Amino acid sequence: MAASIERLCVHTMTTKPWSLREAVEGYAAAGVRGITVWRQHLESYGLAEGAALLRDSGLGVVSLCRGGFFPHPEPSGRQAAIDDNRRAIDEAAAIGAPLVVLVCGAVPGMPLDEGRRQIQDGIAACLDHARDAGVKLAIEPLHPMYADCRSAVTTLKQANDMVAALASPWLGVTVDVYHVWWDPDLEREIARAGSSIFSFHVCDWRTPTRDLLNDRALMGAGCIDIPRIRGWVEQAGFGGWIEAEIFSDEHWGMDQAAYLQQIKTAYLNHV
Amino acid sequence: MAASIERLCVHTMTTKPWSLREAVEGYAAAGVRGITVWRQHLESYGLAEGAALLRDSGLGVVSLCRGGFFPHPEPSGRQAAIDDNRRAIDEAAAIGAPLVVLVCGAVPGMPLDEGRRQIQDGIAACLDHARDAGVKLAIEPLHPMYADCRSAVTTLKQANDMVAALASPWLGVTVDVYHVWWDPDLEREIARAGSSIFSFHVCDWRTPTRDLLNDRALMGAGCIDIPRIRGWVEQAGFGGWIEAEIFSDEHWGMDQAAYLQQIKTAYLNHV
Repeated sequence: MAASIERLCVHTMTTKPWSLREAVEGYAAAGVRGITVWRQHLESYGLAEGAALLRDSGLGVVSLCRGGFFPHPEPSGRQAAIDDNRRAIDEAAAIGAPLVVLVCGAVPGMPLDEGRRQIQDGIAACLDHARDAGVKLAIEPLHPMYADCRSAVTTLKQANDMVAALASPWLGVTVDVYHVWWDPDLEREIARAGSSIFSFHVCDWRTPTRDLLNDRALMGAGCIDIPRIRGWVEQAGFGGWIEAEIFSDEHWGMDQAAYLQQIKTAYLNHV
Repeated sequence: MAASIERLCVHTMTTKPWSLREAVEGYAAAGVRGITVWRQHLESYGLAEGAALLRDSGLGVVSLCRGGFFPHPEPSGRQAAIDDNRRAIDEAAAIGAPLVVLVCGAVPGMPLDEGRRQIQDGIAACLDHARDAGVKLAIEPLHPMYADCRSAVTTLKQANDMVAALASPWLGVTVDVYHVWWDPDLEREIARAGSSIFSFHVCDWRTPTRDLLNDRALMGAGCIDIPRIRGWVEQAGFGGWIEAEIFSDEHWGMDQAAYLQQIKTAYLNHV
């Protein structure tokens, strides 16, 4: 269990109803020290103003979510995705985020191995830009229930294979317990990932899950053994932020300041 | 693509609103030659009467769905599951079904490897009964989105490993495209399964999927390359029934005779 909330980071999507300013002020008021910024929260605020707000807040800016969505049936679509990922890298640099998290993308009906080839090519085309900006990229494997349209990368092994193939210090992985908890190879692949684990996301798997996208649970309110996975990640050398990324229509319907207190309690008791 | 519906089998759960008699009569009227019987349809009808109905129908009785759900926190619960699986074997024998399909079970919060140990022990305790009844058992790996409460067996590799460990000609696997299509090891594990592939289920993965349980699509209405997987299964030596198992609130809301015609068309065009 966590002894303090020193390493707790909260995603702006976790408190989706809050604007970027409300999130910054709300997190600071609650003693949360880290923030991961979703592009839609930044966009609705304005990049320059958002960057100033974050700089003045004193919060650690942990990452920008999200780049990715590389596969596309047409070359022009793949180029557009690369261009957009380069913009995401620039936005991350502008707000002082050292990392862009990649939800890699998938096209319904495109074979998953072809999708992964296009993802690897797309990431390769962004790595120089990432290095020049001083921003890292992290491949986040997504749960196989998102293999149709969100990510052809469904296991940490596939993400690790891609990192090995591209062999850049600017590329690593994000481990999100929600996406990988079921994976029989998880312990081994976390150990293999080692220092290329760039970020670590937590929430929980609710039973029954009422919605494929927006029914994630607070840590401790589901079936995932988060401390066990956290142990593996730390054994692999990761000592960075622990990020609460919770998509939940139920929790978004609450008072967000009260919800943030629940997140802190859940973090202390179940991470 | 299938040249005829000769090998098409339909699950009674696919036409859930129909009673067993309506299903038997409806399938026969549509020229469907195989039926897989779900226990709830049998139960509401009565075993002896259901068996007579099936025997007189001329339909091939392909399998009984479903056994399984072996893991339980208490030894008494595990014994109750074994007892229930033996009853399922007896029911299968009574209706002339050569196979019981196992949805193996999972307990939220129980480590998945512990769940798999309990599953393997539970199956082991049923194999003599299966042999004596002349009924085979098939482990059906389920999609990882069911790992919380329905199946700790989420990959064909895990099912194959269990079949190898128990080494009985009465134990094999069921390949359902819905559960395994995303798996990067699928082609290899289908080849490995070989003659232990006891049954093959088809439907499709809808985008977006609106419900975790009951939003499966007709073949061709989703993103799964069914002919490719069918090719692998047949390359491995499987030449049996091809079973349409489609849970769908949308399709259950239709006239079931009209729906059965759609299933036949989808089978001919997309399997």
